[in-house]
Amino acid sequence: MFVRVHEVGPRDGLQNEPEVVSTEDKLAFIQRLVASGHRDVEVTSFVRPRWIPQLADASEVLARLPRVDGVRYWALVPNQRGLERALDAGLGHIATFMSVSETHNQRNVNRTVKESLAGVRQVLGSARAEGLGSRAYLSTVFGCPYEGPVSVSKTVELGLALLDAGADVLALGDTTGMGWPALVQEVVAAFGRAGVGPELLALHLHDTRGTALANAFAALECGIRHLDASSGGLGGCPYAPGASGNLATEDLLFLLHAQGYETGIDLDLAVDAAELVERALGRELSGRYFRQARGAQARRAARTA
Amino acid sequence: MFVRVHEVGPRDGLQNEPEVVSTEDKLAFIQRLVASGHRDVEVTSFVRPRWIPQLADASEVLARLPRVDGVRYWALVPNQRGLERALDAGLGHIATFMSVSETHNQRNVNRTVKESLAGVRQVLGSARAEGLGSRAYLSTVFGCPYEGPVSVSKTVELGLALLDAGADVLALGDTTGMGWPALVQEVVAAFGRAGVGPELLALHLHDTRGTALANAFAALECGIRHLDASSGGLGGCPYAPGASGNLATEDLLFLLHAQGYETGIDLDLAVDAAELVERALGRELSGRYFRQARGAQARRAARTA
Repeated sequence: MFVRVHEVGPRDGLQNEPEVVSTEDKLAFIQRLVASGHRDVEVTSFVRPRWIPQLADASEVLARLPRVDGVRYWALVPNQRGLERALDAGLGHIATFMSVSETHNQRNVNRTVKESLAGVRQVLGSARAEGLGSRAYLSTVFGCPYEGPVSVSKTVELGLALLDAGADVLALGDTTGMGWPALVQEVVAAFGRAGVGPELLALHLHDTRGTALANAFAALECGIRHLDASSGGLGGCPYAPGASGNLATEDLLFLLHAQGYETGIDLDLAVDAAELVERALGRELSGRYFRQARGAQARRAARTA
Repeated sequence: MFVRVHEVGPRDGLQNEPEVVSTEDKLAFIQRLVASGHRDVEVTSFVRPRWIPQLADASEVLARLPRVDGVRYWALVPNQRGLERALDAGLGHIATFMSVSETHNQRNVNRTVKESLAGVRQVLGSARAEGLGSRAYLSTVFGCPYEGPVSVSKTVELGLALLDAGADVLALGDTTGMGWPALVQEVVAAFGRAGVGPELLALHLHDTRGTALANAFAALECGIRHLDASSGGLGGCPYAPGASGNLATEDLLFLLHAQGYETGIDLDLAVDAAELVERALGRELSGRYFRQARGAQARRAARTA
């Protein structure tokens, strides 16, 4: 059984790191991710450069990335203007985003949920007309840091609207890691009752409270075969209070392969990719599997030295 | 539904930390764990002090701990002599240990599995005769760092022998965090077929590869209601290569409470306990929930300042 792992490290990871990684290092990182077998890599974001200086080189990254057969490069696109920049850069796959939570959406993009939905629907329609692949992120599905619990029926209503507008896949985001397994299963079941099967859903999990992999396992149990993860757990700086890293790619791969799922990704090579970005950042990444793998390498090197 | 959380931070956590925590700080830590609602706390180990200098003050810790109604203090006991020291110290609950893996057992205690089993059975018999409560750890159940995969039938055979010798509970250890959910379920099912229900089993998980909470969730799904965890994720020094911390207590509590289980433990007070030992160690603990909770506190303090 195949599980599609959507690597968000270069985008969601790096945008949440205080350090800015050079364009050269990003390109090397992304190429190493692809060499490890990743076929879906979210490489950057076309939001205004002053919002996220870490990703201000979006167009250059895309221009210089070698195209590889079967590899889909994704970028975040906030609005029609972002879409145009993405098209100019030759991007083939876009991700839109909005929150289920009114307060989170306001604080994130200074718009109501209704306004965001209208804008995102327009972008998804244009993307489809241009022949682009698309995924629509819904944020704060499993809890909002401002509002607390989030309505499952509102999530389903917005999700249906986004699929109706042309999104190929709906990526349900546990933006600040507030979810738990039973809630994941409740949300997936609610979509099922609305006629949306797990093949149209991806889960985008953060590990803020340590639950990301347990939530991923619960998602697999109810038929989800599309999961986002971030190389080395990138995006959760351990020195920032309340930092909120993504599910670490290597932890996910270890579990998936142990459970008998195929991903097409080589775990050792995925560790190499995380090691490269760790050096570029100049601080230790928090991914658990990654840390033990690096420790094992160090011990082997010490023995042979 | 009640889940019994067995707190191993003062023992399994501190024995794997490079720093030695003072007896005063240990006492304060354990008392704060008890104040948070913990009823099972593994407080120290009666192995030879020169093996584990971090726990050389075992007798003093036990002598000075205030007895609290309903609270069970546990200590690790390697052999008959350790049991005598534990009895002298007034301990009421002991934990024995041995590995399923021959190589791990040899390296850990310099005995064959057969020799260890004979010794442990003797200790469990004496403990029962003295009216002590007991748990028997079986290590490397879900994989051995030297031998790789571990035979499930050998695990069951040894487990039956330990229960037969008088252990109240069998604590199945994923000593270096090599397990995955399906394997947890396979092992529990194998015990079931041998007539050992989940009420006689506890799971002792390490988070070396990030899978501990997913494995705990899988264990809950197959009826396990007794889980070990370590305050703040103590025991996995992030600066030691290949370090192997226990499942963090707060991550487990967050998941359990969200899923509707009762534990009798207050999560906020559990965070306070971890904070105390963090200060005593002088380095940041790695538990995810703990880190976000401390970050949230810091942000609140900054707002009100």
